[in-house]
Amino acid sequence: MLIDKHIPFTPLEKLGEFGLIERIAKNFPVKYTNTIKGIGDDAAVLVCDEQFYYLVSTDMLVEGVHFDLSYTPLKHLGWKAVVVNLSDIYAMNGIPTAVTISLGLNNRFSVEAVDELYAGVEFACRTFAIDVVGGDTTTTRGGMCIGITALGKVEKSQIVYRNGAQKNDLICVTGDLGAAYAGFRILEREKQVFLENPNIQPDLAEYDYVVGRQLKPSPPVELISWFRQNEFKPTAMIDISDGLASEILHICQQSKVGARIMEDKIPIDIQTQKVAMEFKIDTNTFAFNGGEDYEILFTAPVSMHDAIKKIPNVSIIGYITDAAEGVNLLSKQGSLVPIQAQGWKHF
Amino acid sequence: MLIDKHIPFTPLEKLGEFGLIERIAKNFPVKYTNTIKGIGDDAAVLVCDEQFYYLVSTDMLVEGVHFDLSYTPLKHLGWKAVVVNLSDIYAMNGIPTAVTISLGLNNRFSVEAVDELYAGVEFACRTFAIDVVGGDTTTTRGGMCIGITALGKVEKSQIVYRNGAQKNDLICVTGDLGAAYAGFRILEREKQVFLENPNIQPDLAEYDYVVGRQLKPSPPVELISWFRQNEFKPTAMIDISDGLASEILHICQQSKVGARIMEDKIPIDIQTQKVAMEFKIDTNTFAFNGGEDYEILFTAPVSMHDAIKKIPNVSIIGYITDAAEGVNLLSKQGSLVPIQAQGWKHF
Repeated sequence: MLIDKHIPFTPLEKLGEFGLIERIAKNFPVKYTNTIKGIGDDAAVLVCDEQFYYLVSTDMLVEGVHFDLSYTPLKHLGWKAVVVNLSDIYAMNGIPTAVTISLGLNNRFSVEAVDELYAGVEFACRTFAIDVVGGDTTTTRGGMCIGITALGKVEKSQIVYRNGAQKNDLICVTGDLGAAYAGFRILEREKQVFLENPNIQPDLAEYDYVVGRQLKPSPPVELISWFRQNEFKPTAMIDISDGLASEILHICQQSKVGARIMEDKIPIDIQTQKVAMEFKIDTNTFAFNGGEDYEILFTAPVSMHDAIKKIPNVSIIGYITDAAEGVNLLSKQGSLVPIQAQGWKHF
Repeated sequence: MLIDKHIPFTPLEKLGEFGLIERIAKNFPVKYTNTIKGIGDDAAVLVCDEQFYYLVSTDMLVEGVHFDLSYTPLKHLGWKAVVVNLSDIYAMNGIPTAVTISLGLNNRFSVEAVDELYAGVEFACRTFAIDVVGGDTTTTRGGMCIGITALGKVEKSQIVYRNGAQKNDLICVTGDLGAAYAGFRILEREKQVFLENPNIQPDLAEYDYVVGRQLKPSPPVELISWFRQNEFKPTAMIDISDGLASEILHICQQSKVGARIMEDKIPIDIQTQKVAMEFKIDTNTFAFNGGEDYEILFTAPVSMHDAIKKIPNVSIIGYITDAAEGVNLLSKQGSLVPIQAQGWKHF
């Protein structure tokens, strides 16, 4: 009744997710003194006290888009919903303190199903020492929808943004990349096999690592502890939720620098490589565009080289250059390939 | 594949929303020193600095459940999504400072539609002097879904919980009640008329007030200013989102008291009464169970009677009793009727 049919219709896919966020963000510059940093980093930064900033990050997970309940146990989903948000707090060099959880679901879910989901939430909160301080429950007309907001704190002197990378800084990453996407491909394949013949039970034993990385990611919380204990402060940080390509581009764009990533230095697990070979896909695609690794990408001055080498489970994968040099991958064959964000184009 | 068919299936409707929240909440007691108050009030209360607490509240709005886009302009929806959350911050006697907004939508929405929605968000944020500091955008397989988290602050000495009501306290409410639900009924009726004959255009002029209350609610922010300016602190406070019945029961349950509400004192607008008569429904039903008024219900010592009378736009509707007396409505005819929460039973 009130919808005006004369308004032009520009499809969302024309902008894509990043374009849409940019369009929205430009209408919301920071206006008030309580806000230190609004939209544009892993978490918003708000005034707290003399010593600390508050951090806030939010995510929405939608059934059929972010998770498939035919192979995702609800307990794992509860865990994952929490940790993907904590990851954003860690990526500001902060410590999470609390989450709120909103849950939308329809009546195909039972009370027992909700119990399972919250058991995963509770396990994650216990593991990372945070409180669930609020939430909302509602029905939906479609599938399940989970909204999580994570809150955290960081000492003012220790906050790390995306925009601090300097020329010659080393580019470092925790853990290994592409495994979560490899796990996703395996689970999707086994789902198809099951749908075609429900008598075939999947044997995921040889893929346990990558499947685990997809279903139960764990952010590198020990990295933040190491930084504090060793009085080490990165120049820029971001969590790897959309894939290495997208994240290094965010850092370079916001820091106004370029980067060179060495292909042979990218940490990739042998199971990830195996899955890539099975699917006849370049392993780089998994690491660069797979996403959902929830590892941390950070930069630090080249003078910290020896210190970085001592951080457990961290690889140096490249270095920051002048903006004019662009953001490139130096391939194993020695050629320079521009890195492009495939990003996330669900629209 | 991983779903165990042997797990019992208890339907969600068996618990209802309040039962489900209670079941979830009991697994999440406050554990950490950063949290002052977790689940169970309008907003969570977190450690901030010497002088202030941080407040956090979250809501999820789902198309087809909380809003109907056939008669809700997107700009109004954006406004409403923000203010329903601010209302929770005001209900703690706090001042909102920021919101995060997550938006899930499918490709039937255009870029222009998203612009309209965020224009409403922007207007609300400008009106209430807050920043949008973060968010998320995603596709859904179903309709639109909006997740909002509001952040605010309150001086430690000024925080008001649901649990502070004392025997003999006066029960007060801002504005008038039931109008938002009256507006909802009118819009639903006109939608049916339109669906049956698209050539009939609705004339909503005689219902402008109630329709406005449904589509563009406005929390009584001036009440909080008045409290501060007059050094007035209520004993208990809650916002009216689910209807007067549910909210007075929350206050009584948490304060361990009873209450007596005088039917003839409940503020009801003449348009609301008119709509109730048209639909042949008791006006009380609109006020007690309608919800979405986003007014504030508060209690204050009887010694403050004269001060309360000076607060603009506030009605004294009853008083607090011993818990043993229960929560009752004194009808215009002089009979006592127990107040029961119909609450929200969408499951």
